[in-house]
Amino acid sequence: MKKTIILSTLIALSSFASASLLDDAKKAGLTPIPTNSEELTKLIDNPKNPLNEAKVKLGKALFFEPRLSKSNLISCNTCHNLATGGIDGVSSAIGHKWTSNPHHLNSPTVYNAVFMERQFWDGRDPDLEAQAQGPMQASPEMAISKEMAVERISSMAGYQEQFKKAFNEDNITFKKIADAIGAFERTLVTPSPFDKFLDGDTKALSAEEQEGLKIFIAKGCTACHTGIGIGGGMQKFPLVKPYKYANIGDFKGDKNGMVKTPTLRNIAQTAPYFHNGAVWSLEEAVKIMGETQLGMEINDKDTASIVTFLKALDGEMPTIIYPKLPAVTSTTPKPEVK
Amino acid sequence: MKKTIILSTLIALSSFASASLLDDAKKAGLTPIPTNSEELTKLIDNPKNPLNEAKVKLGKALFFEPRLSKSNLISCNTCHNLATGGIDGVSSAIGHKWTSNPHHLNSPTVYNAVFMERQFWDGRDPDLEAQAQGPMQASPEMAISKEMAVERISSMAGYQEQFKKAFNEDNITFKKIADAIGAFERTLVTPSPFDKFLDGDTKALSAEEQEGLKIFIAKGCTACHTGIGIGGGMQKFPLVKPYKYANIGDFKGDKNGMVKTPTLRNIAQTAPYFHNGAVWSLEEAVKIMGETQLGMEINDKDTASIVTFLKALDGEMPTIIYPKLPAVTSTTPKPEVK
Repeated sequence: MKKTIILSTLIALSSFASASLLDDAKKAGLTPIPTNSEELTKLIDNPKNPLNEAKVKLGKALFFEPRLSKSNLISCNTCHNLATGGIDGVSSAIGHKWTSNPHHLNSPTVYNAVFMERQFWDGRDPDLEAQAQGPMQASPEMAISKEMAVERISSMAGYQEQFKKAFNEDNITFKKIADAIGAFERTLVTPSPFDKFLDGDTKALSAEEQEGLKIFIAKGCTACHTGIGIGGGMQKFPLVKPYKYANIGDFKGDKNGMVKTPTLRNIAQTAPYFHNGAVWSLEEAVKIMGETQLGMEINDKDTASIVTFLKALDGEMPTIIYPKLPAVTSTTPKPEVK
Repeated sequence: MKKTIILSTLIALSSFASASLLDDAKKAGLTPIPTNSEELTKLIDNPKNPLNEAKVKLGKALFFEPRLSKSNLISCNTCHNLATGGIDGVSSAIGHKWTSNPHHLNSPTVYNAVFMERQFWDGRDPDLEAQAQGPMQASPEMAISKEMAVERISSMAGYQEQFKKAFNEDNITFKKIADAIGAFERTLVTPSPFDKFLDGDTKALSAEEQEGLKIFIAKGCTACHTGIGIGGGMQKFPLVKPYKYANIGDFKGDKNGMVKTPTLRNIAQTAPYFHNGAVWSLEEAVKIMGETQLGMEINDKDTASIVTFLKALDGEMPTIIYPKLPAVTSTTPKPEVK
């Protein structure tokens, strides 16, 4: 009898604690990905580039389209590989002619990138549509000109019709190519156990994960890693103490030293970490964040606990049918690998 | 009444012609991909590496697995892209550190490669399992050592269990990695309208396509392009007259000057053509074949007709769900991009 009372009390206390933690998480601005598909669609949509099924399908094809690179060998998916958490698994992105990013910048994940307030590490682009135009043209990335991109795509059977369906207009432009890619990327959201927790299902996180969340909030991580993106805003980096790997590459943020806060969604899938991909261990990344941003040493126990929570941000990736792309024709500009 | 008789007579004559063409095609050794799935499975299976669902699924993951390259950036799919006819769309394969194939060799399609009697342009490997071991290790391709491949794969959660399911044994070996990839590749077959024709549905090919087939057989193309692979055996190349682009690269075939006959299935999807990828036009390729192998000039009309037939070899590609690959761990050997 006594035991039962103790047990019931413990359970009651535990669900009280969970409810209180949920409350703290909400107060810290952590927000779930909507489960309601209409609500989600409204959230991820861009009024300047409205989503439709044909556009998303076209965007998927173009995301995987290697003929959008000068060499025929590199697609968006090369650096933002949807099989590996939306990243490439190297410290500094490698592009055309095996050129490393000149600033030694790491490719951020494309999953949940729709929730980022700005795009690129220096936040220079406002949305995915603008972002998509960059890497295609950048000489160390896909290295194609706008004109060659349009010429390549226009020359292949099937694309004409797909653009017509997607945009209800006849011409293919570089902007439309990027807009279709952006539309597809908007759909790459990955709801996780943490979202269920935020939706009120406090059992969706284990006691250990909840403990990690508690520490994550208590230490102040949510100052930057918040919102639906659990990141995505601009923040001074490093803020309090120097970043120990600052000597790798020359990136210093935007003109005010502001750097985009990466999403923590699927963070356990997206090593290496930081703008210069210098850190492979999530534990080390957490400790560095403590130092540079919060000015504190996070001990091993708390670090492990935070990492346990971060793993609950692994989300369900959308099912992607690998596209079948059209064949080149006699008018398709040839690849240039040199 | 007279008109009806004439029409009926024409139809009867046309189906007689089709039946006779079908007979000629069969006599020339052209063979359809079985529609019966048991028969097909038996045909594509390798008794030394029996197919099973778990192995094919694992093989698909490994086919798309960039961590099987030294750099983390190149997978089997990079050069044998399943979105673009199973090829890379460049003349000479490009691999690790943007190295071009030292012999300027073109990547052959992986679709229907199971039907080839030998693998590689010089036919040096007997099957897909043996073939798969080569490019992973080749320094201008994926450039990984057997040991590093095994270490990378073994270090990632989930693979251990998948290998256990696929091979019913606990250890992961380089041979098993290649065997799983080979098993997946065996499933990449693409039945086409021509297969329906060979199965007796003479309406599956248009009159123009049938005319092309007739010329294709009459000219003697089926001397090499025959069997279920419509190619895949070893043949002297060039046979009668010199190959006009022989100066590109230094490949001369095996020690007897024998070169593997490429499949013509999906040939309209797999430009550029020949072992050195020197030719982008299918028409030009047909004419070159006439010269080098048959010692004849194929005129424009017959060439166009043959090309019309070749397009009926475009097959239905299997639906491929893009895999979700496991995350690297602290024990995963790091990428080496230099």
